[in-house]
Amino acid sequence: MRIALDAMGGDDAPRSTVQGAVEAAQAGFHILLVGDEAVLREEVSLLGGLPPNVHIHHAPDVVEMEDAPSRSLRRKKDSSLRVAFELASGGQADAVVTMGNTGAALAIGMFVAGRMEGILRPAIAGLIPHEERPVVLLDVGATVDCKPEHLHQFAVMGTALSRTAFGIENPEVAILANGTEQEKGTEVTRETAARLSEDPTLSFVGYIEPDGLIEGRSSVVVTDGWTGNLFIKTAEAAVAHVTKALGDAARANVLAKTGALLLKPSLSKNLSHLDGSVAAGGLLLGIEACALIGHGGSEPPAIANTLCFAARLAEARLLDALRLGLNDPSSGTVQLP
Amino acid sequence: MRIALDAMGGDDAPRSTVQGAVEAAQAGFHILLVGDEAVLREEVSLLGGLPPNVHIHHAPDVVEMEDAPSRSLRRKKDSSLRVAFELASGGQADAVVTMGNTGAALAIGMFVAGRMEGILRPAIAGLIPHEERPVVLLDVGATVDCKPEHLHQFAVMGTALSRTAFGIENPEVAILANGTEQEKGTEVTRETAARLSEDPTLSFVGYIEPDGLIEGRSSVVVTDGWTGNLFIKTAEAAVAHVTKALGDAARANVLAKTGALLLKPSLSKNLSHLDGSVAAGGLLLGIEACALIGHGGSEPPAIANTLCFAARLAEARLLDALRLGLNDPSSGTVQLP
Repeated sequence: MRIALDAMGGDDAPRSTVQGAVEAAQAGFHILLVGDEAVLREEVSLLGGLPPNVHIHHAPDVVEMEDAPSRSLRRKKDSSLRVAFELASGGQADAVVTMGNTGAALAIGMFVAGRMEGILRPAIAGLIPHEERPVVLLDVGATVDCKPEHLHQFAVMGTALSRTAFGIENPEVAILANGTEQEKGTEVTRETAARLSEDPTLSFVGYIEPDGLIEGRSSVVVTDGWTGNLFIKTAEAAVAHVTKALGDAARANVLAKTGALLLKPSLSKNLSHLDGSVAAGGLLLGIEACALIGHGGSEPPAIANTLCFAARLAEARLLDALRLGLNDPSSGTVQLP
Repeated sequence: MRIALDAMGGDDAPRSTVQGAVEAAQAGFHILLVGDEAVLREEVSLLGGLPPNVHIHHAPDVVEMEDAPSRSLRRKKDSSLRVAFELASGGQADAVVTMGNTGAALAIGMFVAGRMEGILRPAIAGLIPHEERPVVLLDVGATVDCKPEHLHQFAVMGTALSRTAFGIENPEVAILANGTEQEKGTEVTRETAARLSEDPTLSFVGYIEPDGLIEGRSSVVVTDGWTGNLFIKTAEAAVAHVTKALGDAARANVLAKTGALLLKPSLSKNLSHLDGSVAAGGLLLGIEACALIGHGGSEPPAIANTLCFAARLAEARLLDALRLGLNDPSSGTVQLP
């Protein structure tokens, strides 16, 4: 396996990406560090060299976090992000990993790799952390406005991903809604529910509310990119709010400081599944490339994890699994000639 | 002030509601306990009687949490919830408080009290807890599918509520979105943004993301009832997830137990604003009654707080403030003859 890493994407890139690549290299697969060669060489020299399975691939431009997707696509034709996708499209890499600009990754991925045949809209699958295994939530931001047929394809792709990535044979699929009763939801979710319940390739279980999603009561949850994106941002903000209050409380006085020290080991264990270094980021689904997008603030261990996860997905032939799901003749979705 | 309390609504009603009413009675206003008289008398006898400003008003039926709104409206014409609204409509009460079924309260409130003149759609305003003062978020569940003109009215009503309830002269109004840049959002939020920025009666500040809302960066946040309801449910579920992990960690072993005991006082202080007993629930806006809906699981102190908040809003003439906001000739919204 050869993974192309956008070495210039991420808050602390290229330091964090180079270190993450070196950590991941222990797993044995090849990593292509894509970015400005001179900058990367300097970073590498600080680390005392690269393992033999990590290689530098030159790309002079950098897509910044604040760059609009269209601008990144039109103006930065030699960006590390774009070249990483070109390596995948050209067969020189089996997967792409970036900690950079999500919108730009989507636009460039769609343009360079192209849409998967039969796919109506792309989706970003978020992996919602859970004690046992992550829940696949899609879409978390690629397609804001979704029709039932789009959500149906997301369910099929989410099922293929859950099967490939986590080995769940028949993952339960739910639709995110404001209640579990059939009459809840919107016109779009109700029509989607009707479609999913008629698709024999899916294990559709109905609506799920945010608490059920967070508690991992279903393996795959489908929603439009607006709702999914706000779900992620709300959950992250709420968790950050409580953990900040906890941190402030732990620093309030000597008693609290002592208490926090005693409590920390067991609390860290209980919250470890919420830690970014354990969970991988999101996946671009519906394009002709296996592409993972991590958090901009990812530290080297999280980047290494994402690289290993990408290698595992590429090795398990995620793209083939997605194509197969979309082409299953017993599925009500797209059927290619 | 006379507040009609749906004494049969809530997980632990009528015990919790009667106790809550007795607590709130110390503030001096009148409370009408609406419910089955025999049941309420029994509950009251356990408490050794009622203060002179708490009165029982008989209503034999009970709307259950699982009753569909339409059924509650058609089949339970003598429900405590409905009679409470009838007292308000008939001028015998200045506000209605319930800890019961939100959907039923909305349906019954709309039917009994009627829509406020000029109002296109009702909204439920949620009060999002914050250290300084709650953020008014609307709609959190009354109108799932909203047009820009509905959201514009929500902004006007939210402004009137923020002014009346929290004394903020020119509350900043934002639209909940998936990013703060103008090009983010949906067609509906972008059109709403254009309308709000042209309304001289509003202090419109643009889009806000979930973290900004949770951090209280704006006083009023408007969104459709789908997004607002999922925001509330997601934030609650995420907070519950972390606090459960914290509780489990605190019970894990002797060291952790000791640590938790030492940390607890300062943590409780830091998280007190998230406590249901401090925050009031939601408000029904757009109907001809001042009506508050609390959490079903509210304990007596939270119910007492909600009653006091209702009395304060009624005394400050919330309905007049709402009508004034909607009729302001400089506002781009409804103008009555």
